[in-house]
Order: sequence, then C-alpha cells, then structure tokens
Amino acid sequence: MPFSPDDIDLANTPAVLIDLDIAKANIERFQSYADSHGLRVRPHIKTHKLPAVAEMQLAAGAIGVTCQKVSEAEAMIAGSTEITDVLITYNIIGAEKAEHLKALARKVKLSVVADSVAIVDGLSAAFHDEAQPLAVLVECDTGANRCGVLSPEAAEQLAAHIHAAPGLVFGGLMTYPPAGGEAGVERFMADAKARIEARGIDVPVITSGGTPSMMHAADAPVTTEYRPGTYVYNDRSLVARGVCGWDDCALNVLATVVSVPAPNRAIIDAGSKALTSDLLGLAGYGHVLGRDDITIDQLSEEHGRLVSSGDINLSVGQKIRIVPNHACVVTNLVDAVFVTGAGLNGVEKWPVAARGKIV
Amino acid sequence: MPFSPDDIDLANTPAVLIDLDIAKANIERFQSYADSHGLRVRPHIKTHKLPAVAEMQLAAGAIGVTCQKVSEAEAMIAGSTEITDVLITYNIIGAEKAEHLKALARKVKLSVVADSVAIVDGLSAAFHDEAQPLAVLVECDTGANRCGVLSPEAAEQLAAHIHAAPGLVFGGLMTYPPAGGEAGVERFMADAKARIEARGIDVPVITSGGTPSMMHAADAPVTTEYRPGTYVYNDRSLVARGVCGWDDCALNVLATVVSVPAPNRAIIDAGSKALTSDLLGLAGYGHVLGRDDITIDQLSEEHGRLVSSGDINLSVGQKIRIVPNHACVVTNLVDAVFVTGAGLNGVEKWPVAARGKIV
Repeated sequence: MPFSPDDIDLANTPAVLIDLDIAKANIERFQSYADSHGLRVRPHIKTHKLPAVAEMQLAAGAIGVTCQKVSEAEAMIAGSTEITDVLITYNIIGAEKAEHLKALARKVKLSVVADSVAIVDGLSAAFHDEAQPLAVLVECDTGANRCGVLSPEAAEQLAAHIHAAPGLVFGGLMTYPPAGGEAGVERFMADAKARIEARGIDVPVITSGGTPSMMHAADAPVTTEYRPGTYVYNDRSLVARGVCGWDDCALNVLATVVSVPAPNRAIIDAGSKALTSDLLGLAGYGHVLGRDDITIDQLSEEHGRLVSSGDINLSVGQKIRIVPNHACVVTNLVDAVFVTGAGLNGVEKWPVAARGKIV
Repeated sequence: MPFSPDDIDLANTPAVLIDLDIAKANIERFQSYADSHGLRVRPHIKTHKLPAVAEMQLAAGAIGVTCQKVSEAEAMIAGSTEITDVLITYNIIGAEKAEHLKALARKVKLSVVADSVAIVDGLSAAFHDEAQPLAVLVECDTGANRCGVLSPEAAEQLAAHIHAAPGLVFGGLMTYPPAGGEAGVERFMADAKARIEARGIDVPVITSGGTPSMMHAADAPVTTEYRPGTYVYNDRSLVARGVCGWDDCALNVLATVVSVPAPNRAIIDAGSKALTSDLLGLAGYGHVLGRDDITIDQLSEEHGRLVSSGDINLSVGQKIRIVPNHACVVTNLVDAVFVTGAGLNGVEKWPVAARGKIV
C-alpha cells in the first residue's frame, strides 16, 4: 500500500476503513460479558465477512461462527483452517444447496436450522446416506415475526420430527429475537425445552443473538449461546440506540468532497453503492465524524448529498470519514477493505472473502 | 448451465435474471424516439454494467456510453473493443484517479465533467503534458440540487476557464435533470449556450439524461444528446411512474420461499443483499409478479418478508419472480446474472463486469 495509518486519507475514495484495534476491543468487551455469565459466543460473520476477523473472535474465546447462507460458510471455511464449527441460521432448501451443504459437513462441525417439516424432510433426504448426521436446530419466532415456529408446542413437534429423521440429529433451539426481547426468549425457550426434554430428547443448545441487546443476553438465562454480529464494528444505528459511542465504531467510510455547489451543501463521492440505502429507522444515511451539524440527506448511487444547518465549510478535494447507518451491508458492497491496527505493518488491503455470498 | 430458458426456475436462488429480448425492445424503443427527434443516445451503463449489453445499445445506434466512475469505464472498455467513446459524468479528483483517467484517454475518446475551478485545475494539471487534450463538459444544476453550477452565468465562466486551461478542451454542457424538468433544461442550457458562444467558444454537446422523462427529452430541443440508464431493464419505480409495464421489465430477481410461518406471511431467500433497501418513494421492496395482493414489507440482509391482504398461498420451496424497485442497484450486488434470449443457446451466466466499481 502507498500509505501508512498516519496518512490513510490518501486512499482512493470511496474506501471502507477498518480499525482492528477498535474491533478487538469490541470483541473482548462482549466475550468478557458472556464469559462472566456462562454464555458461549458464536459471532455472526455477516458483519465483517473476513476469515482473519473470525480468527480474532475465536482467539478471544468464541466457540465457532454463525453464517446466514451456505456460500458464506464456504467462503469463510476456505479462508481459515481455524474455523471448524459453523452454524448456518437459515432454512436451506434445494438440490444445489444440499450438495454444497454435504460437502461442508464433511469438512467442519456443521449445524443448520429449520422451522418446517418441509425443510427438515429436504435435509433428511440429502443427509440420510451420510456417515455423520447433520445437526438441525429448530428456529423459534420469539417476536421478530420473521422465520420460526410460532409456539413452544410447534417447536416440540418439529424437534421430535428432526429427532426421528434419518440423517439428522436434533441440535437445539435457535431464535433471532427482537431488541429487548429477553423476557420473550426466556418464556418461549424454557417452555419448549421442558416439552422437548419431557419426550426424552436432549436440548444441547439454545442460541439467541443480535447486537442491540447483547449486554442483556443473560437476562434470558435459558440461553446457552449468543450470536452477535454488528458488535465487532458497530455503526450509527447502534450509537443511536446507546449501545456504543463513535469511538467504538471500527468501520468508517472514507469519502472525498467532489462539489460544494451552495454554501450549506456539499456532494461526496460515496453514494448508495458505498453507504447503502439502509435507514434502520434513522434520518439520513450516516454520520460525518466531527460534524454533528451535517446531515447526509440524499444518496444517489455515486453521490452523497451533505447539508448543514449552517455553513457547510468543506472544500472540493477534502476527505471526510463517515460512520454508516449499518456496517454489515457496507462490507457487502466492496471487494476489499483497508485495515489498520492490531500490529499490522501499515495499511493492508484485505479482500472481503464472503462478499456477495447470497446463495 | 444446468437449465434451459424453460426451466430457469431451477437456478440456485436468489438469482438475478435478465431477458435480453425485453432489453433489446427497450433499447430500440428509445433509440427510435431519439432518432426521430435528432437526439444522439449515450446510454448510462450503471444499470447493466455489462459490455455485451453496451454493445447491443451501440448496435442499435448509440454514439457511445456514459459511466459514473473511472473504474466503471475501465471495466467496460476492458470488456469490449466496441466501446470507443465514453463520457464520465463525474467530478474526478485525486492523483490516483487522474493517472487512471490518463490511461483511459489514450485508449478511447474520453470526456468528463466539472462543476468547479478546483476540478478543472486538477484535470488540467494531470493532462497538460498529454498529447491529446481531455474534453471537459460543464455540469449544470437544472433543478436536481445535486452537483452542477447554479446559473448560466456560472456555466459560461467555467466554460471559459476550461477553454483556457492547458491540456483541456471545452466539451459542452451536461445536466442530470429532475424528472419532468425539460423546461428548466431548455431555459438554462439555451441561455448558457448563447453566453458561451458569444465568447467565441463552440458548444459541441448539450447532454441530458434520466429514464423517467426520456420520452419527453425532445421537449428541451437545445439538447443534442440523452443518457438514459434504467430504460434498458426498467423496474418497479418506472412502472409506478407509468413509464412502462411489468412485461417491459427485463430484470427479475428469482427467489425461493423458505418459510410460511403464518397464513398471510411468507419469507423468501432474497433480502436487502439481493433486492436492496432502495425505496425510491415506494412502499415495499419490490413487486411479486402475478401477485398484486402481496407486499414485500420488510427486508433483512438475507430474508424478505411477504405479507398478503388475504391468504399468502405460497409453499416452502416455491419460486417467485420479483421486479425490484431499482434495477441498477440490484446488478451491483451480484457477481453474475443469468441471461436468456437474443439468440442465446439456453441460459448463460454473465459476470457483471462493472459491479462494485465505485472509485
């Protein structure tokens, strides 16, 4: 790279910058909380998509990683021999995905989830001839209204179906809860666990996740494992929720001012293809560090429009750093990120191994 | 590919499907309008990002292509020897970009835009030793409130500055107008043109663009050239504006139902990483073809939530086709698209050459 951490502003923009020292502190903060409450940590790699950052999480004490799609898991496993335990928190269906899943299951300790008989039967059909059974957890809807069985009774029934299915083994219960949903998680999971155990079926894992309320994860003591994702980098949505501060945001988007057409307005070279259109309930598309007066009020694909409550006081060519609304979707947009810290010798450009892995 | 156009639904999902026959009809429809009004066509490649589709546009009569970023232009030129005339409608600044720009200018007929003296002086510094001058157009703000000089007087002054700058030649006037802004374009551009010509400087090109009002482009007769982008594929935003119908949408996202947790709700495997969060003023994140009763009311990164006004009537494993809100941002998310039509022998998988080219 032609620049050191001291002059990273020389990077061609827009560019995504990662400070590994901040990421490391974020990782250790949650690991420490989890350790003190007897919770295992299985970070979701969707935020960073980088095998080397997964290795940092494992080194800090994580028991494995979480992926959302089969191809994400493939990219991560291909990128690190230290990734040996993967949970894919997704209903996997279709012949092509099943073949990939079988190949993965021969390489690492693999588990997946299901919320219907149709998904379970598809997995069983794929794995009934495999030497090792596939662990399948039941996904439970504890209030997020996305995937998941709707009641502990339904969880019990699906667990029994998995338990009886050739090629599969019941792996436990999984939920992606709404923020602040610990009481609902506890109620649902404790009930489902008791019902399943009453059938003589062990419930080895109860896994929950989500960065927004991770520091309250232990408020649902039935939980054995937690899967935070965004916590590694943090972002504007988490600052807005009071979960962290700007100094805890390990990911910045570096942009250049390309136009200052009016006294209170400037245009930067980062648009929705760098910052994304994700609002996550916020107004504006990111926070310009050091400039609380500025709102990024409009994005085109390659233009971001900045307006100030007063004088914009920026000049053409000037670089700014932005904390995006949502870090995970930003790393999905770039082929590589620029990384500093953690003993690196200068700035390194790391390919985003699991970018675009949507199947 | 393991499937023919008749069974493209076998594709691993989510997948982006392109029907080249529809794209060809879309290209020809606008080319025909432009030809009948004496307008030259310079399509924006941001929608398809595919050299082969640019070649279809050139074959239909386009005089060249438009790109938004230097790296986009590089990817397109690398992918087709037929792309020999490129306008980059962006303020280009910075040493690294200038070097790339010089290399491009030695390969093709290249022009760029500028809306400030700072941008012009940077380009002049880069090109003053080059054998061929770089054509620089003045970007004019005719109401979109993005980049661009704010008045015909300012356009005149910047044109004169370009005209006098070593290594540069004044290339004309450019605008990205608001939809329906033809009267404003005509007023601004006619005034600026007269002022610049009164200085003895030729105005060879007046270029405008944007699909939404492309069929009214000739209502601003001062315009010599038009730069539509989305028209090649169309999308839900253009159907909503009455510009086209569903049958004119050449790009679909193919998704699989992975969960039907409630009678009126289903979850598909296409989330914001396939459909994007772009709303473009619409409610919901895409249109499920054949299902006017369904709203895609929420996206996570890998989940799309479908709700119906009645019974959702979908089953796990079923494939659906979605017209996304905004086609251009969808093609930026996938490494490849699945292409049918135009005499292809079956389905081809084409890498999206200019995906992620944001610098």
